[in-house]
Amino acid sequence: MFKVIAISRQFGSGGRTVGVQAAKRLNIPCYDQELIERVAKNSGFAKEYIESYSEYATHRGWLGRVIDGAARFEGMNNQDKIWVEQRKIILEISQSPCVIVGRCADYILRDRDDVLKVFVHADEKSRAERVVKIYGESAEKPEKRIRDKDKRRSAYYKNYTETEWGVASNYHIALDSGKLGIEQCVDILVALYNKNTKLTT
Amino acid sequence: MFKVIAISRQFGSGGRTVGVQAAKRLNIPCYDQELIERVAKNSGFAKEYIESYSEYATHRGWLGRVIDGAARFEGMNNQDKIWVEQRKIILEISQSPCVIVGRCADYILRDRDDVLKVFVHADEKSRAERVVKIYGESAEKPEKRIRDKDKRRSAYYKNYTETEWGVASNYHIALDSGKLGIEQCVDILVALYNKNTKLTT
Repeated sequence: MFKVIAISRQFGSGGRTVGVQAAKRLNIPCYDQELIERVAKNSGFAKEYIESYSEYATHRGWLGRVIDGAARFEGMNNQDKIWVEQRKIILEISQSPCVIVGRCADYILRDRDDVLKVFVHADEKSRAERVVKIYGESAEKPEKRIRDKDKRRSAYYKNYTETEWGVASNYHIALDSGKLGIEQCVDILVALYNKNTKLTT
Repeated sequence: MFKVIAISRQFGSGGRTVGVQAAKRLNIPCYDQELIERVAKNSGFAKEYIESYSEYATHRGWLGRVIDGAARFEGMNNQDKIWVEQRKIILEISQSPCVIVGRCADYILRDRDDVLKVFVHADEKSRAERVVKIYGESAEKPEKRIRDKDKRRSAYYKNYTETEWGVASNYHIALDSGKLGIEQCVDILVALYNKNTKLTT
């Protein structure tokens, strides 16, 4: 039986929505924004700062890295400190049934038998439409925003987990929300969580 | 609505069994051995020869490649000829509802809207146990057989499709049969095929 669902997702795939809706149907909490708030409270960093650094690699050049280096305190830079705090909170909240979106929870909880590891992705066209619908237009084309965000998420994941992001064999189930639709993705996760994949006839 | 299910699978993951059982439940044919027989009939090659060359890259050294080169006829070696014949048969059989296991069918039918692209995988331990159970013991350790077969399948896939095997975003759904079990994987595919992912309560 699964206790926790850990969802990794491509930017704009609706993976967060899948998590929120599955949690609602299962009547368990979904941690995403709330996780950031807890990290903020425990670490002292501002929420906006955590949002930028809690699952994205920075893409600054060598000067940025020099500044990062100078900002190190006891060998950890700010991103490392957020990682440590976030990891602690994930280990804590995962003691009770919940859905956790992003933040390498799948990796952090990899040795647990009761964690369903999920990856949600979609084709670029569906994601671009979704990004504009949810986050609005911006000067940058949605395709560019998607590629940039995914690249930074992937780099962040690799940096802290030393495994590849988006490789099928790292997840128990990977779903194309563009092709299958959000609702069917939610149905499947709810069914797996309840160990009841028999369909109605 | 899906018409065809194309299943790629890691060696020993039970992906073929998932395909056979899903097809049975959906009352549609499953092509695996039968596909080989058709290729044999149309190409003149022996079944055993096709089995070895229809989804595995050879792993011979330079001398093998020289012999391959010498055997080329009209620019195609035997493996290319099998690929062409296999592709033709896949395009033909996919006109009617069916399940196709392996043989890059997911790639060959990539532009079709009505093909559900599936990847089945499992952890090495589950696969090793399954390999011994189904194919029996051999001088080679099952872990070595698994790694060797996957490496050759992956190389074959890359050679003919120029895309990566096992990357989640190349499939509509990827399933860990070791964790979820064969039956749940079958349930999910049948549900998606029938566009009915609502579970019984």
